[in-house]
Amino acid sequence: METETNRIEAFSDGMFAIAITLLILEIKVPSSDPGSLTKALLRQWPSYFAFLLSFVYIGVMWMNHHRMFNHIRRSNDTLLVLNLLLLLGVTAVPFPTAVLAANLGTPDQRTAALFYNGVFVVIAIFFNVLWRYAVSHQLLDKSLESSAALISRQYAVGPWMYALCMVLAFVDARASLALNVALAIFFALPPHLVRRS
Amino acid sequence: METETNRIEAFSDGMFAIAITLLILEIKVPSSDPGSLTKALLRQWPSYFAFLLSFVYIGVMWMNHHRMFNHIRRSNDTLLVLNLLLLLGVTAVPFPTAVLAANLGTPDQRTAALFYNGVFVVIAIFFNVLWRYAVSHQLLDKSLESSAALISRQYAVGPWMYALCMVLAFVDARASLALNVALAIFFALPPHLVRRS
Amino acid sequence: METETNRIEAFSDGMFAIAITLLILEIKVPSSDPGSLTKALLRQWPSYFAFLLSFVYIGVMWMNHHRMFNHIRRSNDTLLVLNLLLLLGVTAVPFPTAVLAANLGTPDQRTAALFYNGVFVVIAIFFNVLWRYAVSHQLLDKSLESSAALISRQYAVGPWMYALCMVLAFVDARASLALNVALAIFFALPPHLVRRS
Amino acid sequence: METETNRIEAFSDGMFAIAITLLILEIKVPSSDPGSLTKALLRQWPSYFAFLLSFVYIGVMWMNHHRMFNHIRRSNDTLLVLNLLLLLGVTAVPFPTAVLAANLGTPDQRTAALFYNGVFVVIAIFFNVLWRYAVSHQLLDKSLESSAALISRQYAVGPWMYALCMVLAFVDARASLALNVALAIFFALPPHLVRRS
Repeated sequence: METETNRIEAFSDGMFAIAITLLILEIKVPSSDPGSLTKALLRQWPSYFAFLLSFVYIGVMWMNHHRMFNHIRRSNDTLLVLNLLLLLGVTAVPFPTAVLAANLGTPDQRTAALFYNGVFVVIAIFFNVLWRYAVSHQLLDKSLESSAALISRQYAVGPWMYALCMVLAFVDARASLALNVALAIFFALPPHLVRRS
Repeated sequence: METETNRIEAFSDGMFAIAITLLILEIKVPSSDPGSLTKALLRQWPSYFAFLLSFVYIGVMWMNHHRMFNHIRRSNDTLLVLNLLLLLGVTAVPFPTAVLAANLGTPDQRTAALFYNGVFVVIAIFFNVLWRYAVSHQLLDKSLESSAALISRQYAVGPWMYALCMVLAFVDARASLALNVALAIFFALPPHLVRRS
Repeated sequence: METETNRIEAFSDGMFAIAITLLILEIKVPSSDPGSLTKALLRQWPSYFAFLLSFVYIGVMWMNHHRMFNHIRRSNDTLLVLNLLLLLGVTAVPFPTAVLAANLGTPDQRTAALFYNGVFVVIAIFFNVLWRYAVSHQLLDKSLESSAALISRQYAVGPWMYALCMVLAFVDARASLALNVALAIFFALPPHLVRRS
Repeated sequence: METETNRIEAFSDGMFAIAITLLILEIKVPSSDPGSLTKALLRQWPSYFAFLLSFVYIGVMWMNHHRMFNHIRRSNDTLLVLNLLLLLGVTAVPFPTAVLAANLGTPDQRTAALFYNGVFVVIAIFFNVLWRYAVSHQLLDKSLESSAALISRQYAVGPWMYALCMVLAFVDARASLALNVALAIFFALPPHLVRRS
């Protein structure tokens, strides 16, 4: 059945690659008065911010998905459905990203941060559902049981981190976004630390 | 010739993955008065509804396509053309999806539901044409003949289900969409039941 | 070096799949008065026409590309560049398609038909350049020499067919488009005939 | 670990293929007075220019990425992250391309050329970072050490070439773009020379 998970991985990779590449379409060419392109480009910082944040998050999700399927050796219909549920979340990311970009620095900043992180809470839950299903239905490679236990503990943290961003957004939207950035840096920079944390 | 169907599958997977991921581009960032983003996001429920429905339908079609090509062992030019015809239907889905989203809750709701389900009737017919061609031209793996017979019976039902949605749309558009939702849940939730129904 | 052409094929397949799937994005949801969605959908026939035509042409190009690389066994840098040149043409197709759709039935119909077929003349020439390079630099599988000669003769016809559509467009734009449709049907329907013609 | 780099390559190829194909979406159908489509199409030369330039640059980056991973035999988490950083740059290309197309021939031409080339300076630096990491952490195939040394020397030139375009843009935007075209032709036409330069 290894071929089976290979095709799931290839299909999932395709959807991750497309979702992450579509993010750039949400950054529009600014219309500007003649001679003021620099200012117009700089004024679009919320779009760049949201693009970078979502790029890192989708990139990290791809690496986690990759690692997960390194452990999964067998597949069945339910796993296919749970994986599609996860991919549903991933492909939706360009929309909350665009909502965040459009509302940073406006009175709706808090709502946008709540919505953005809410989508990631759901995706992180889907990650856990998929992984726990694979664990409890013995779809894993037996020889990797110790690192599987590590993954279980790590993934369980995910939804809480994004939920914390949501709670923070009620207090202060900027603090919430600062935590988002910290998470992205934590995810992107020290892979050895993330793996052992 | 196994390599041959492998490349068809890879190309088809690519098109399924792109079509399903492009669906999100039809959901636009709402323009809203300051402070009313929540309301503006909620007002877009038809877009989310249509996105989810089409995501499930394309996802299920991908799983069915996958299963079909698990049975098909040989390929020829006509199979390539029939598969492209099926993919023509799949790649078109973002358009009826957007039409449905734009017209839910308006006087054109019925027309949109008819158009939406009409496209799926055509796709379901293309599925049957492809499968029957493979069966009648001995392109299947002989060892899987019994499950092939099961597939033949299941696929034959597909066009009628979407046609029933069309008929219902003449009576009541909401009833038609409720049946669409029921179909999506039936497809997505109990894969064991679907396989044995 | 078989791995080498495998990766070229996979990359090319990806670009074919994306270009063909992006075509649907050029069909926009019509804005219509309440209750007149049917009429509004029907009024968009030029978009559907152009979509179907380009879908068939890209689909056929993919099958031809596939067949070509079944014969090519070795690769080098120049082949990579010539293949990218061909893919440049393929990825450009959504633009002339949209131009054609926007101008069917207007005084600019002829210009649009000329532009549309002009792009395909260029693509067909790129096909021949790539193929002739592979033939003349001994990159082909020796055991397939007879079918390679057949391909050489078939591909040489391609640019002339689209050029004929261009010439016809000067006489009558509708006649030119009718020939386009005839070509598409000829390509799509009888693969055995196409192969032996 | 060869499988490991295979999946990185497949994912990277997917993102290259999508980014290069999305470029065409930035070329919009011109709105024109009846009978003046030819003029309207010609007036869009900046869009075609920017499309062709970016197509060549992404195509060349894909070939270089390809060559780089022909030498890389082992992978680790840091390599994954550095590769995603490079892909971040690649997927961003449609945006500076559209900015360039929108501002060619306007007073903002210089700013657009600076921004465009600035993005490529960053991408070229990411290329070097990835490659140097692979070299210094012994992830390369030992048998290819001599051609690896050649690659190191070639890649080191990349950022300087785009930086030179930036410097030129301060003097004269058109000279800068002429150098961009010369670079593209140099990259695209003589692969043997590029390899040995």
